[in-house]
Amino acid sequence: MPEKPTILQRQTVAQSRLFRAEQLDLRFSNGVERRYEKLCSGGPGAVLMVPMLDPNTVLMVREYAGGLEDYHLSLPKGAMDKGETPEQSANRELKEEVGYGASKLDYLKCLHLSPSYMEHKIHVLLARDLYPERLAGDEPEPLEIVPCNIDDLLALTMRDDVIEGRTIAALFMARAWLARHG
Amino acid sequence: MPEKPTILQRQTVAQSRLFRAEQLDLRFSNGVERRYEKLCSGGPGAVLMVPMLDPNTVLMVREYAGGLEDYHLSLPKGAMDKGETPEQSANRELKEEVGYGASKLDYLKCLHLSPSYMEHKIHVLLARDLYPERLAGDEPEPLEIVPCNIDDLLALTMRDDVIEGRTIAALFMARAWLARHG
Repeated sequence: MPEKPTILQRQTVAQSRLFRAEQLDLRFSNGVERRYEKLCSGGPGAVLMVPMLDPNTVLMVREYAGGLEDYHLSLPKGAMDKGETPEQSANRELKEEVGYGASKLDYLKCLHLSPSYMEHKIHVLLARDLYPERLAGDEPEPLEIVPCNIDDLLALTMRDDVIEGRTIAALFMARAWLARHG
Repeated sequence: MPEKPTILQRQTVAQSRLFRAEQLDLRFSNGVERRYEKLCSGGPGAVLMVPMLDPNTVLMVREYAGGLEDYHLSLPKGAMDKGETPEQSANRELKEEVGYGASKLDYLKCLHLSPSYMEHKIHVLLARDLYPERLAGDEPEPLEIVPCNIDDLLALTMRDDVIEGRTIAALFMARAWLARHG
């Protein structure tokens, strides 16, 4: 593995309520210099849950996405609150978004969105042994809960309304993990 | 599916060389109003390739990621040039990054990064029947090409240096697609 580039300078170049962009001046180990930009992630991070209602059924949510300006079908997710573990965040978000708690949570993987220009990452947790419990969330409207069969993940992930890379990654990883670890 | 929210107002709230953030004032169909922000994607889009050296071996690249400030292992990808089809971009990027062209390209899926607050998406293409051909690219240093076996994708995607959601999604979708369509 090559030696990491030296960071010559780092400065904030844009900021809004939710986003902050940083400029990095880099010198690679071969001497080449480049200016990069990246989006910084504030806050304690995010969680994405794979909630299994039974061994073959995952609960997905239909939610409005501002970046898409349309609805799409994805796994439930949310921002961690300060001081929470990923497991605590996952259970709270499940209760808020899906109306279930989980007696069994397995940490699968930390996924990055686009590491080339974003710091953002999300913890993926498998949620099983679900029990009904609802907490009030901050959604502008109730999410539609859509039970989906995971036997044919290629068909599910080829659907026109299933478009989120991390949702698709988490579904396949969860199914492979379940097949191996049960 | 609910009626889409009405967009009451839209304005740019931050801009840098690479990023532009837009603020959306929305009124949901139930009357609730919310202020969202999203990152806009300029340009014609991006492509991500799953280059198969043989039926069991995918070519991955080890590249420095500015968002991570470290190296990681991912599928090769790049920005489309104006006027290119996804297939043309994929073949050019493969030649630049991996040193191969592909006689056979199959379009698999358009993946979104984080549709809740990003417009960014990437076209995923399966690349087969590879032949050696190198084009000069714009990388600051040559990428290390890492052949990986796809028989055990759970083990591959659980590696600490494999962390990109869309890479993991594309690997699993490609393997499932190959198993079905050959």
